[in-house]
Amino acid sequence: MESMRQPLRLVGLLFSAVLLAGCQLLTESPTDPRELRGTGDLGLIIERASGSVLVVDTTEKTVLERVEGLGNLSHASVVYSRDGRYGYVFGRDGGLTKVDLLTGSIDRRIVQAGNSIGGAISQDGEYLAVSNYEPGGVKVFDSGSLEQVASIPAHYEGEDGETHRSKTVGLVDAPGNRFVFSLFDAGEIWILDMSHDEPRVVRREAGDKPYDALITGQGRWYIAGLYGEDGLSLLDLWNPDEGVRHILSDYGRNDERRPVYKMPHLEGWAIAGDRAFVPAVGAHKVLEISMEDWAPEGRIPVQGQPVFVMASPDHRQIWVSFAHPDNDVVQVIDSRTSEVIRTLEPGEAVLHMEFSPRGEEVWISARDSNRVTVYDTGTLEKITTLEAKKPSGIFFTSRAHRLGL
Amino acid sequence: MESMRQPLRLVGLLFSAVLLAGCQLLTESPTDPRELRGTGDLGLIIERASGSVLVVDTTEKTVLERVEGLGNLSHASVVYSRDGRYGYVFGRDGGLTKVDLLTGSIDRRIVQAGNSIGGAISQDGEYLAVSNYEPGGVKVFDSGSLEQVASIPAHYEGEDGETHRSKTVGLVDAPGNRFVFSLFDAGEIWILDMSHDEPRVVRREAGDKPYDALITGQGRWYIAGLYGEDGLSLLDLWNPDEGVRHILSDYGRNDERRPVYKMPHLEGWAIAGDRAFVPAVGAHKVLEISMEDWAPEGRIPVQGQPVFVMASPDHRQIWVSFAHPDNDVVQVIDSRTSEVIRTLEPGEAVLHMEFSPRGEEVWISARDSNRVTVYDTGTLEKITTLEAKKPSGIFFTSRAHRLGL
Repeated sequence: MESMRQPLRLVGLLFSAVLLAGCQLLTESPTDPRELRGTGDLGLIIERASGSVLVVDTTEKTVLERVEGLGNLSHASVVYSRDGRYGYVFGRDGGLTKVDLLTGSIDRRIVQAGNSIGGAISQDGEYLAVSNYEPGGVKVFDSGSLEQVASIPAHYEGEDGETHRSKTVGLVDAPGNRFVFSLFDAGEIWILDMSHDEPRVVRREAGDKPYDALITGQGRWYIAGLYGEDGLSLLDLWNPDEGVRHILSDYGRNDERRPVYKMPHLEGWAIAGDRAFVPAVGAHKVLEISMEDWAPEGRIPVQGQPVFVMASPDHRQIWVSFAHPDNDVVQVIDSRTSEVIRTLEPGEAVLHMEFSPRGEEVWISARDSNRVTVYDTGTLEKITTLEAKKPSGIFFTSRAHRLGL
Repeated sequence: MESMRQPLRLVGLLFSAVLLAGCQLLTESPTDPRELRGTGDLGLIIERASGSVLVVDTTEKTVLERVEGLGNLSHASVVYSRDGRYGYVFGRDGGLTKVDLLTGSIDRRIVQAGNSIGGAISQDGEYLAVSNYEPGGVKVFDSGSLEQVASIPAHYEGEDGETHRSKTVGLVDAPGNRFVFSLFDAGEIWILDMSHDEPRVVRREAGDKPYDALITGQGRWYIAGLYGEDGLSLLDLWNPDEGVRHILSDYGRNDERRPVYKMPHLEGWAIAGDRAFVPAVGAHKVLEISMEDWAPEGRIPVQGQPVFVMASPDHRQIWVSFAHPDNDVVQVIDSRTSEVIRTLEPGEAVLHMEFSPRGEEVWISARDSNRVTVYDTGTLEKITTLEAKKPSGIFFTSRAHRLGL
């Protein structure tokens, strides 16, 4: 029997090795399925300088993976597939990257234009649209394969009588499988309807040089900021035939013209109940605006020039981040009293914030401190920090279920 | 060497067996993880008569699994873990079942009371609360283990000077890790705060016999329907010290008292913009109510007694289901014009509806036709049907990310 001892011991060792290898294949290989888990509490954090994103878990408040090779991620934004598994990252260099949050890897990646700014996913999750500067227009892709399904050049007739292509900006999704965007050079708003066999476009005048836009939470109101004149353009998507209305005529007035990149992003508007909270242009104020008649209702003094103004999901708090050089601070406004109730210091170069879906926490990037801080919105105390390389935008998968994000 | 041949061949067979077993363990066993997939497009359909639920995929519009053994599922409701993986099914018999949507199996199940009605999950996803008739009160459980963490008996002093326990109804979650519920026998609203080391309760008067309640989308207004008097009780959770306000004094008037189970569920109220759309009690009308001053604004004629009135996520349509005998029809109201624009016939005994998270579709159960019909909300045409055994409530995982559901 002695002769069998060694082989059997060897067998035992090999058994263990095979079992381990078999399990590792399924649990650790970067290209194969990993641990089975829900996707509702996942998110991506943009690491701008290194062209990477972090996959994060908002329940455990941990980083799960770093995914690299996404190109130029300045001003990058993310939308999600309707199952929450895939994040689509729109880069500044025309890159469109489909990231698998479950495996922590790039599923697909294309470079679809030379210079682009933002994207959106259709109501039904079928289509991705990307807004391009160069060549000016919008391209539409299949969200599964990333194959192009439509190209909408932003043609317009210039003062010279020739046909030109405009830069496109302020692209959002709207109900009815539509996308809405603005033509900076043409001064128009276009509604692209993807619910028929062929794409259909409706064009509306938009005022002088729309530079950015937002859509309200239920997808009714599209508001474009204007670089060429004061005020904003409002389009009622329930009644697009009525054309745009000029609102907030004083908005943008009172200081020297600034280059486009200094104008506040309109995605930084907060809507809470029947009021919008809006960064003032060039002033240390947050403006309060009635959503009923779009009239200014108040001006809330804050410690710097606000950039992002965000309402907590319960609409009870308004969180504000600021432009350089006052950008190491975040202020919290009580929406009932319109007063600043807390000033927080999450680190150096703070800009982007994201609320957990039901609002118990907010995550804040401090780019030059290389960290993300998680705050309890009830106590306004810090819960934890996560390390990240020059973090900027934070995007949670709950966005998959919301219109206009 | 001959002596080693057999063992080595055996080793080869065993190797294969172990490898297969190892892989199957991770991929095919019904109690173990299956295919890796996102959970954002999943949902559960209650099969009331058979004590089962269907796991459905809202992208493919298919049934993935039937999970059985959930007890009495009349009036059953579902909330979700924050990752969307687990559905918690609250049964009428006090059963609380944690269903794993990824494996299509029961993860845990307890019977926590003799007779219960509805439940909720805390803002942070840590706690489940269940509203019990017998014994009257609310119990709170850990959402991971289903272990009990608190029991709140609904004690009150009766007219006889003795301490009694009240039935509890209208349980919802609210911001700040709170639960709010009503005491039918005591005529009170209680706010249970789970954000401290020990549960804290605040009690408020509620009017005569609150029988059901709702909370508005941002978790500010708690509205209880009253069985013992006309009108409703409104509690502002931003200012609970102000106590309840009596609103809509005519609500419930104009017909004979009905048993509690015939009163409209308040979860069947729709809120769209600054208006609520509400089933009239005992009349073929949907009431339109201003959310600003809670005043009636209009009465929309419909084809039967409405039970559930639901706003599409874009607030542009109001879908209405009806009480017996007019319950083979659903009507769609245009929220702009307040007129019925379509009458659909999804089958026999239609009651429950659920919109896809971004509203491109609505799923409708027809209990006595044993099917669920999916409609396109744009064309109002049928997309497909799914077979189900006596289907009732439909609950999608996107509820994980919303307050008060």
